[in-house]
Amino acid sequence: MDRYLVISSDCHAGLQPGDYRDYLDPQHREAFDVALPLQIAQMEESAKTFLVADINEEWRKGRDEALTGAWDHDQRVRVLDADGVAGEIVFPDGITEMNTPPFGAGLGLPTEGVDPELQWAGAKAHNRWLAELCEMAPERRVGVAVVPMLWDVERAAEYVRELRRTTNLRAVLIPNVWGAFAPYHHPRYEPFWRVCAELDVIIHFHSGATPRKDHFGEWPANSSELLPGSVGIYITEVSWFVARPITYLIWGGVFERHPTLKVVVTEGTCSWAPELLKLMDLRYDHGAEDQKLGDYRSHMSLRPSEYFRRNVALGASCVRRSEVEQRHDIGLETIMWGTDFPHPEGSWPHTHQDMREVFTGLPDDEVAAMLGGNAARFYGFDTEKLAPLVARIGPEKQQFRGETPELVGTRAS
Amino acid sequence: MDRYLVISSDCHAGLQPGDYRDYLDPQHREAFDVALPLQIAQMEESAKTFLVADINEEWRKGRDEALTGAWDHDQRVRVLDADGVAGEIVFPDGITEMNTPPFGAGLGLPTEGVDPELQWAGAKAHNRWLAELCEMAPERRVGVAVVPMLWDVERAAEYVRELRRTTNLRAVLIPNVWGAFAPYHHPRYEPFWRVCAELDVIIHFHSGATPRKDHFGEWPANSSELLPGSVGIYITEVSWFVARPITYLIWGGVFERHPTLKVVVTEGTCSWAPELLKLMDLRYDHGAEDQKLGDYRSHMSLRPSEYFRRNVALGASCVRRSEVEQRHDIGLETIMWGTDFPHPEGSWPHTHQDMREVFTGLPDDEVAAMLGGNAARFYGFDTEKLAPLVARIGPEKQQFRGETPELVGTRAS
Repeated sequence: MDRYLVISSDCHAGLQPGDYRDYLDPQHREAFDVALPLQIAQMEESAKTFLVADINEEWRKGRDEALTGAWDHDQRVRVLDADGVAGEIVFPDGITEMNTPPFGAGLGLPTEGVDPELQWAGAKAHNRWLAELCEMAPERRVGVAVVPMLWDVERAAEYVRELRRTTNLRAVLIPNVWGAFAPYHHPRYEPFWRVCAELDVIIHFHSGATPRKDHFGEWPANSSELLPGSVGIYITEVSWFVARPITYLIWGGVFERHPTLKVVVTEGTCSWAPELLKLMDLRYDHGAEDQKLGDYRSHMSLRPSEYFRRNVALGASCVRRSEVEQRHDIGLETIMWGTDFPHPEGSWPHTHQDMREVFTGLPDDEVAAMLGGNAARFYGFDTEKLAPLVARIGPEKQQFRGETPELVGTRAS
Repeated sequence: MDRYLVISSDCHAGLQPGDYRDYLDPQHREAFDVALPLQIAQMEESAKTFLVADINEEWRKGRDEALTGAWDHDQRVRVLDADGVAGEIVFPDGITEMNTPPFGAGLGLPTEGVDPELQWAGAKAHNRWLAELCEMAPERRVGVAVVPMLWDVERAAEYVRELRRTTNLRAVLIPNVWGAFAPYHHPRYEPFWRVCAELDVIIHFHSGATPRKDHFGEWPANSSELLPGSVGIYITEVSWFVARPITYLIWGGVFERHPTLKVVVTEGTCSWAPELLKLMDLRYDHGAEDQKLGDYRSHMSLRPSEYFRRNVALGASCVRRSEVEQRHDIGLETIMWGTDFPHPEGSWPHTHQDMREVFTGLPDDEVAAMLGGNAARFYGFDTEKLAPLVARIGPEKQQFRGETPELVGTRAS
């Protein structure tokens, strides 16, 4: 094979807000009709302060048709083919500031300011549509179902069983910020971990949510501006908060009890992993500073980094050259490249250039692992079925050989 | 000079609980008498579950007299002399599970479950005593006053003025966890930053406090045990939480507005610094993924790492060889070694061995900087006054030369 199998570990899809109506259980459609204009107004408002309207509009110019790939199958195939992407993991929130499921059932899955029943209804509506989208290209798409798991763990576990029974979905997104709920080492979550391990359902945490109060909760009086510093703090801490559950699952013994459970942290950068693993192993190894704390590890048969290597993978959207150079400390098998289509911070529509900037000059087999091989194995893609497609659209290995060229793009640093 | 000037950036001192009574404002002594047995009972209870009594008792055997150095001047001088430590930064909580100021005015400075007036009273009592302790060896001791700053920022700023006017204290400890209050990029804290910058008062964050609910707040029903994982999670995240305010001060523009403000993060490890600085600089440099967020940095004339290098130092208690090997990424001038006396996780009473394990084989001038030179400069110690003491007690440079010996102790990893 002279082309790479490329799987994007991070893509997004979502209907335009009004189009979710038909996918909702009928009893929630009245609430939907009331909430829709509010949701749209809120998204527009938030796009004004957090996203910068000018930049987004500039970015979108001439791309309206391609961006309908956020929900349209045929268009999506054209866009991904052109990007050289054979397979994809499909998260909600198709276009950052617009195509999000109703009732707060998008990426952030907040637990404040939402109604649990309605959030569940929104999640189910999205998942129904997502299953349809994935069914149109089942060998290429792994859909990530939205599961507002915190409210009622038994219900969430039962819903996962139902998803497996009735749809092609075998990946779930759960909140990475637990708010007033117990964190993820608490035994209340055991039924959820158990069902996911049992049914080979892969758990996902996707970057976005942080404790809102710490980053955006305190506005200056009489102003619609954010506090100076808010955005910088948010984009510094957001990666920590999306990876945070890993610490809880490892120390909480979740991977000890469920050796086959698979968890992915997506779009949270990869560069934090070496230091976190080193720190946890150091703590586990019970140095002098921790001895006074007694036995805190007899429920774990492996070192923290060993659970990480066995149970965790990273959705490496927008990965940079500097992170790929750390690949052996991060874990070569851990890194799953992603495009983040159709978000403006992603690589589309200059994905080929981005890939070359990040990977040129590295060994073929390592590039193959990070661009698609790791994801193929972790998610169980049928690579034989994908082979003809790869032969047609995959980036040519030849283009990644030789000296690393002078890098000028945004992933080069 | 053939000996190193050693300054411990992290030592602790505190009265035995009952002895704080005389230092309290009289109107709070009745409350003190009521609270004292409860405080002692609570400390004993917490020592049982969190600290492990057996290990602490074993560690303390034969050391009772030396440990009175937690509050006794003469004994403290003997202990530090024997350790080769000429100067010290003095935090509260002399002996981890006992000698803490009353009314929650110790290291953690919690804002839940305490009465603000009483916490202030406890802090003032400790600070009065601390000023006395430091006055007995002013060239050797920098006392860190406890300031429960969150409740009322103007009052805290005024108190700092008073401390500078009436005592030798020119360093303060403020909470690193803000709970329900606004985080540190909020303008409400401006008066405090201003007075500290103006009066050369150094702000400290000291490891210990984390959001209690996430680590210890959810006990299993009918059990006095911690949830499995709690301690491992705590000792993994505690370093992040103590360093967290730095992110807020940098992005919040606090160091931009107050170029001379000095801030120290103590006992939080150093190994997180390279990755945090790299991440913040990357965000500041405005890569593709952040462009959609608009202008979030025009209030900053420097890159995040430049503020860090200029305004921040790290109290590197229990530092390990592996961290010292990262010194150029952390910032050689940033690392201030510490013993953590008299805490069991510290280096006392085998400080000389620990120092050699960590520093042997490195260039003299770099060892000198980390062991004491950086702290001398940052805190403004009078090194000429300390010279005769160093000539008598300082560790001999000769002992740190040559090949790094085979390392067997707890700091070697």
